[in-house]
Amino acid sequence: MSEIELHPDRLLPTDPRQRSIARRLYDAVARLPIISPHGHVDPGILARDEPFPDPASLFVVPDHYVTRLLHAHGVPLDRLGVPPGNPVTPVEPREIWRTLCEHWWAFRGTPSRYWLESELVEVFGIRLRPSAENADRLFDELSERLARPEFRPRALYERFGIEVLATTDDPASDLADHKALAEDPTWKGRVIPTFRPDAYVDPTRPDWPRAIERLGAVSDVDTTSYAGYIEALEKRRAYFKAHGATASDHGAPDAGSEPLTPSEASRIFAAALKGTATPEEATAFRRHMLTEMARMACDDGLVMQLHPAVLRNHHTATYERFGPDVGCDIPTAAEYTRALRPLLERYGTHPNFRIVLFTTDEDVFSREIAPLAGFYPSVFVGAPWWFIDTPDAILRFRAAVTDTVGFHKTAGFVDDTRAYCSIPARHDMARRLDCAFLARLVAEHRLPEDEAIETARDLAYHLPASTFRIAS
Amino acid sequence: MSEIELHPDRLLPTDPRQRSIARRLYDAVARLPIISPHGHVDPGILARDEPFPDPASLFVVPDHYVTRLLHAHGVPLDRLGVPPGNPVTPVEPREIWRTLCEHWWAFRGTPSRYWLESELVEVFGIRLRPSAENADRLFDELSERLARPEFRPRALYERFGIEVLATTDDPASDLADHKALAEDPTWKGRVIPTFRPDAYVDPTRPDWPRAIERLGAVSDVDTTSYAGYIEALEKRRAYFKAHGATASDHGAPDAGSEPLTPSEASRIFAAALKGTATPEEATAFRRHMLTEMARMACDDGLVMQLHPAVLRNHHTATYERFGPDVGCDIPTAAEYTRALRPLLERYGTHPNFRIVLFTTDEDVFSREIAPLAGFYPSVFVGAPWWFIDTPDAILRFRAAVTDTVGFHKTAGFVDDTRAYCSIPARHDMARRLDCAFLARLVAEHRLPEDEAIETARDLAYHLPASTFRIAS
Amino acid sequence: MSEIELHPDRLLPTDPRQRSIARRLYDAVARLPIISPHGHVDPGILARDEPFPDPASLFVVPDHYVTRLLHAHGVPLDRLGVPPGNPVTPVEPREIWRTLCEHWWAFRGTPSRYWLESELVEVFGIRLRPSAENADRLFDELSERLARPEFRPRALYERFGIEVLATTDDPASDLADHKALAEDPTWKGRVIPTFRPDAYVDPTRPDWPRAIERLGAVSDVDTTSYAGYIEALEKRRAYFKAHGATASDHGAPDAGSEPLTPSEASRIFAAALKGTATPEEATAFRRHMLTEMARMACDDGLVMQLHPAVLRNHHTATYERFGPDVGCDIPTAAEYTRALRPLLERYGTHPNFRIVLFTTDEDVFSREIAPLAGFYPSVFVGAPWWFIDTPDAILRFRAAVTDTVGFHKTAGFVDDTRAYCSIPARHDMARRLDCAFLARLVAEHRLPEDEAIETARDLAYHLPASTFRIAS
Repeated sequence: MSEIELHPDRLLPTDPRQRSIARRLYDAVARLPIISPHGHVDPGILARDEPFPDPASLFVVPDHYVTRLLHAHGVPLDRLGVPPGNPVTPVEPREIWRTLCEHWWAFRGTPSRYWLESELVEVFGIRLRPSAENADRLFDELSERLARPEFRPRALYERFGIEVLATTDDPASDLADHKALAEDPTWKGRVIPTFRPDAYVDPTRPDWPRAIERLGAVSDVDTTSYAGYIEALEKRRAYFKAHGATASDHGAPDAGSEPLTPSEASRIFAAALKGTATPEEATAFRRHMLTEMARMACDDGLVMQLHPAVLRNHHTATYERFGPDVGCDIPTAAEYTRALRPLLERYGTHPNFRIVLFTTDEDVFSREIAPLAGFYPSVFVGAPWWFIDTPDAILRFRAAVTDTVGFHKTAGFVDDTRAYCSIPARHDMARRLDCAFLARLVAEHRLPEDEAIETARDLAYHLPASTFRIAS
Repeated sequence: MSEIELHPDRLLPTDPRQRSIARRLYDAVARLPIISPHGHVDPGILARDEPFPDPASLFVVPDHYVTRLLHAHGVPLDRLGVPPGNPVTPVEPREIWRTLCEHWWAFRGTPSRYWLESELVEVFGIRLRPSAENADRLFDELSERLARPEFRPRALYERFGIEVLATTDDPASDLADHKALAEDPTWKGRVIPTFRPDAYVDPTRPDWPRAIERLGAVSDVDTTSYAGYIEALEKRRAYFKAHGATASDHGAPDAGSEPLTPSEASRIFAAALKGTATPEEATAFRRHMLTEMARMACDDGLVMQLHPAVLRNHHTATYERFGPDVGCDIPTAAEYTRALRPLLERYGTHPNFRIVLFTTDEDVFSREIAPLAGFYPSVFVGAPWWFIDTPDAILRFRAAVTDTVGFHKTAGFVDDTRAYCSIPARHDMARRLDCAFLARLVAEHRLPEDEAIETARDLAYHLPASTFRIAS
Repeated sequence: MSEIELHPDRLLPTDPRQRSIARRLYDAVARLPIISPHGHVDPGILARDEPFPDPASLFVVPDHYVTRLLHAHGVPLDRLGVPPGNPVTPVEPREIWRTLCEHWWAFRGTPSRYWLESELVEVFGIRLRPSAENADRLFDELSERLARPEFRPRALYERFGIEVLATTDDPASDLADHKALAEDPTWKGRVIPTFRPDAYVDPTRPDWPRAIERLGAVSDVDTTSYAGYIEALEKRRAYFKAHGATASDHGAPDAGSEPLTPSEASRIFAAALKGTATPEEATAFRRHMLTEMARMACDDGLVMQLHPAVLRNHHTATYERFGPDVGCDIPTAAEYTRALRPLLERYGTHPNFRIVLFTTDEDVFSREIAPLAGFYPSVFVGAPWWFIDTPDAILRFRAAVTDTVGFHKTAGFVDDTRAYCSIPARHDMARRLDCAFLARLVAEHRLPEDEAIETARDLAYHLPASTFRIAS
């Protein structure tokens, strides 16, 4: 009965004139290699290259876009195998998959369904629209495919046309998987780490003192003093850079960047290690460290990515039972103009500095991010992120920022995914939407088609490569 | 000369492919019964079933969407018979009607004009476009019709195809009109009350002590103590539920929900009764009571509706002369993520709890409301409300929330009207727009048409019925 | 090779039905005279009527929309001749022009490029698309034209069809250029000043005491007392009004309007003159003065324009080297509902009072500005301003406000430009977009075409003239 459609013109405008232009633009970018400068794929899956265990572990368990919406429809997270790798209540993968299929209707109109259907058809050659009735049959067909060599992670990496894949890594990580890949002569891909120091710069976190200890251990520096702490972070950045990193990534409750004096920073650091810093002091220290990271970035050239203004673990009981990243992080209003001013006053025109600003608060695109990127050479506009990396929001994003900064201060698409098999579908979606947007400009006589084609290629390939300094 | 057009395809997309899909979707929902789960119609008009007195009382006086825009164009409110039922300066209905007709141009592009024209044509069979010239003729024609039995409230209720109509009621109300209707064997409709406790939970209101006294009187509980106050509210909720209520409704300056300890709540309650509570204490008590209402909702199952972040009676002189609800309530920035966290930490995953979040601040749809409803089983996205229950805003709403929550965590349309005869036009507008949105998804190959049709029917009928627990 | 297209249907909708309606609407407004009620053109260029010196001084140096985006792409401001008239490092105009042409791609999709290309074709008859290759040739062709009499400012004023041009002026200005024009019998145009008192009402500015001294000198009033200061401002307003002004213009970090008591105002005024006012007091005084200006406006009828919520000179080092208005002003979140309440409580319904609210924060259109203008007779909705006076943002603006206030409480287009030759292109763009918006309403059967045509003419001509009280 019902098949997945996956029309060749999906997501392109329906106006015939716009659609025919969009098709030509899309043809020029559809087969370009994928640059993925920011995401959360575990590099170990490529280092080990083992078959994916089952459809549930691949499509459901690690993808909090999927699990949160099932939870919103009344499915307890423990019936979904959450958190990945350490189920509180072990659930049969077949049960988890069935739950997803029974709720296929709940995903109507969402990008999750779009991505899942793209994956089923394009990665696995399955056209059946999932439902309660065919869940078992689909599970079996997918399981059969997953056992085949051509569905192992490395084979898919090649099939997906990935050129560079950036992961997100703890500064204390030894990057063993990255090293293993780099040293493996049979591996032709490029998987690079990203320095994500959130746990080490935010003393409001209960585990911060232990993190600082760990940081000292891996960097072989005494981190009981502020000076040692800074040195240790610099050494870890150098270590990451030596292993291919081109960027750091910063998530924070806000974009505050007010620096402290060195003596004030030392004092709060010491107090925080003893557990006597106030919440206000700890927050001031976290903001200070953002500017401190910018200072280091001027030196080592790692591109900063800033992802602020999401309240993590909104429902404490869920967090305590299932851990982080299970779907209960909720955005808050974002502010960059005042918050980032101290940092940009110092480093905004430094020739070696670069910062990419992301947001889940759409208002900020035309109000703050585009104006900042439209003046500071160092500031780039990040692609719509998380809740808004979706068809309509991507078009709204382009319409909001292009007037102020054009295309070439935007950083290109970022998939930000934990779902490995969704990477090609996500990049393809972004390319289609950028072509849709450009086609409208052409049809409204605002941009000549030759320049639109060049721009589409820049957005799909050249801009992510150059912005994140990962051009080969 | 000029006739009202009322094209059968009005509000549907103009792209031919989208329009033909939209027509098919609209055909599937156009004649479904109306579920109106939230509004401000006086139940007495149905209980009494008397003819509407005149066109001005029907179309102008009670509709603050209309009176505020006339006021904005320089018409003093006292020339419009505001407030309804108690004119400060009595004005001839014919004069009021003429003022509206003279300003027909001022309503170009507004939903008020769309609704008024729909009513003229579809309810009254009048196609003449109002103007200064034909105002008197229209007044006479409308008056003639209003005198006929088929234009009485109950006849219109049937003609409108209303299945359920929820009113908004004071907790101290005896619900006499609801009772009268329920006991009337000739009445086949269903008019249910909604528990709206704002006046009883906000001690910043000058009349709060008297409200608490009234509450004690109707519930036969001593409300001079906090415990008695809580018991009285619980009894009134039970009374409302016994008379058909399925929901409560909460309007507040913000969505704050931080609970107090019982002793602190008691202390502030006592101080507020004596008039010695500070504004900060009174506000803290109001926020505490939101979570307290959620606690009661877990017990009795009344669905909470939350309408925050409107500054009421912005112009004090207007309020003092004409009272509330005359058009000078102005929205403010809304915030839910932090404000509702205390409430949702406690009851967000309670199986019996449900809360529908409304907003007049569009930013919040993609940033906060959709993410909250996309995780918490208890949270539903309310339809665009008040200033934004309009053609373009409804499409923006769908585009903003669908990516994150799909369709089935949205609550369906809510007309929120005081203008009885606008009910069918408002629901029809919402159905057309939902079909327009769905048609675009189909035309962009993002949703199969069979699922779009099912979704259109869910949005128009099943979701309001199920979300507000008023399914028959 | 590449020519600029400048299609006759540019910016009109691509849907064929909408486009044909839009063409008819546009035909009705395309050739209407230009009313420019707010801008930053130097009246001296018309008073002196000298040839523009060179293409760089005309197209690049004074236009911070252009210089900021070049700076964002790494071009130092001193290579662009910024600030106008006083280059820190003198640069050859030809070099500046070449830099622009080399970066033509960076302006793809921006209104700056749209305006520049319109100017090249429509003002100068040049169709060549600028590039590194043809920069010199274009510079020569433009220079040749600029030397001709028909490209002098007054000849262009006539060619552009300008009926009224408002400038923005310092309250201490003697308005010599305005006087010279008014007294020149060969001059048929109308150039009117606008009273912009920011520097005189904000004691947080370091040069405030000197400004107050200057104010005293030009008004011949002792401004060392608060009473004298108020009298001096009133006299300057009268002086401006006598020289044709119909409006005042107010830029401020926020829209705060809380008045002080006279004694408190006097006290802070005295302290500020001595340099001992705290920042909080200075801010309170600035807010007080907004309401004080509204009081004066009730008396003299000057229309207030309010432009709040932009953080000026975000990058201090740039400001110190190049001065203000070079592209590093960044918007912040705006708030009007609470901020303007004190002012509107007092004067919101005064028959002589009028205030036009502008914003660079789009959220505020549907949430605050439209609701305020939809109730208060004195409040008008200002056109999208600065970062958002652009094709997509103008359509979003209409879609955001029309539902609540229709068309006739919006003030009409305002070009706000420093780039004289961009005036016709900017007004033409706004007319095309308003016609595009209206055409969609017609095609969606929400507005009859005869009323859309009348509305288009109102928006293009009658509303700016009447709102700003500059109707001849």
